[in-house]
Amino acid sequence: MRLATVRTTAGTRAALQHDGAWVLLQATDAGELIARDGWREEALAAVAADAERLPLEGAELAAPILRPGKIVCCGLNYHDHIVETGREVPEYPTLFAKFADTLTGPNDGIEVGGDSQKVDWEAELAVVIGAPVRRASRAEAEAAILGYTVSNDVSYRDWQSRTLQWFQGKAWDATTPIGPVVVTADEISPRDGLEIRCLVDDEVVQLSNTRELVFDAADLVAYVSQFTRLAPGDIVLTGTPGGVGLGRSPQRFLRDGEVLTTSIEGIGTLVNRVSISNGGDAA
Amino acid sequence: MRLATVRTTAGTRAALQHDGAWVLLQATDAGELIARDGWREEALAAVAADAERLPLEGAELAAPILRPGKIVCCGLNYHDHIVETGREVPEYPTLFAKFADTLTGPNDGIEVGGDSQKVDWEAELAVVIGAPVRRASRAEAEAAILGYTVSNDVSYRDWQSRTLQWFQGKAWDATTPIGPVVVTADEISPRDGLEIRCLVDDEVVQLSNTRELVFDAADLVAYVSQFTRLAPGDIVLTGTPGGVGLGRSPQRFLRDGEVLTTSIEGIGTLVNRVSISNGGDAA
Repeated sequence: MRLATVRTTAGTRAALQHDGAWVLLQATDAGELIARDGWREEALAAVAADAERLPLEGAELAAPILRPGKIVCCGLNYHDHIVETGREVPEYPTLFAKFADTLTGPNDGIEVGGDSQKVDWEAELAVVIGAPVRRASRAEAEAAILGYTVSNDVSYRDWQSRTLQWFQGKAWDATTPIGPVVVTADEISPRDGLEIRCLVDDEVVQLSNTRELVFDAADLVAYVSQFTRLAPGDIVLTGTPGGVGLGRSPQRFLRDGEVLTTSIEGIGTLVNRVSISNGGDAA
Repeated sequence: MRLATVRTTAGTRAALQHDGAWVLLQATDAGELIARDGWREEALAAVAADAERLPLEGAELAAPILRPGKIVCCGLNYHDHIVETGREVPEYPTLFAKFADTLTGPNDGIEVGGDSQKVDWEAELAVVIGAPVRRASRAEAEAAILGYTVSNDVSYRDWQSRTLQWFQGKAWDATTPIGPVVVTADEISPRDGLEIRCLVDDEVVQLSNTRELVFDAADLVAYVSQFTRLAPGDIVLTGTPGGVGLGRSPQRFLRDGEVLTTSIEGIGTLVNRVSISNGGDAA
């Protein structure tokens, strides 16, 4: 199944991709949908009942999960990105949090309204939780994963490096695009290898494979669940591969008007134009 | 005004301290109450209308804000704590996040169910937001502060130091007690100096004053609001003074059955018994 949240004139709606169309479901977003028991049957019943449809092309999508209760992010989790930051392969995942309103839609503009001169990209596989998880084994964690989506953990490197804690460089409102769809775990397997790539305008800046993850989706969900309960709609960002602007020589950050294109094989593509109104870029 | 959330047999209720009693208000917690326009008039009307009361003594309190949308925490923010960690006075606040369910009530037990052997205390002043704030000046931030409460940012030092990011040592479910009341900003001024102390059983382990804060409440709210909107009920933890177990020589962590008592002058006291069922302590 491929789930999304569609913007309509009457507000947002959860939607299931089916037969070249979005079948609109009775929920304001995919997050509200998947928190309900029997949502799969409900979605299939909507298809069978010929529920309202929108064409795939031209539909405007929001973040599939609009109000996740928790977003946990992992850093330093691709072998190639660890190499470029000059670090060792870690024994434990490096984790931090974002807020729900840090997220933005898969085609929304990213407005840099602060004073950052070092806005950087981080293409990431995002894991969506489908069932409550607490102190889970790897197998239990795997079973609680609803599916996967694409994200870009856009980071303000100057703010990120002001102190020891990265959070303030990574929690700017509406700067983390996510989507376009959540693909359920029965359809794809990041462990088997999905190509992940990020482009700035036409230039491929990141190109890797989810096979390169140090801690895979089930590892991360199991680990996080040791200290905090996860619930349907919660999101785990799994970290970014090599090729970020900070790791290049010379360093290279986003400029006003550039378009960030983030994609993962078998899931889809985010396209986000960056607006920088603070007069600066660090080119 | 002194606001709390009282546990009753019919669920939690927001309450206003008045004339030696809790006056019960029409909201499930103080967070729901203060998100409403006109809540002050509503609370005073309940007092005048002789609404249901509970005696102060014996009432069981929950965290005053049960579901804050955002909790932002500051580290390294007391001159004396900075000295004990061997660091310099910072130019910027060091920030990280907690989840709503990391909080627990002012007299609840703290159950250490994981494998941590280094559970430490961090008495903190907590700021409660009363109005929407975005990219605020210091004066605007000050005006958006509803009031203050007491918290203890209980930290699992072994997990905290596993990686560069502290989050995983500070986001264990139900380990951050908060309360007992939110005292509105017209009644107290941390900038003018409130004594803050933490005891482990009968031993005073932290004793400082909010005058020692490097970044005060208004500084922190203004700073955080540069990157993320704050809303009524959001909470900012302002960091802990010197005297944590990690900073002692020899180091000293919490043991099963010890009682943590955290108080701030003019606000109140948290009393939390620690249960450590993993067989260990690092005494």
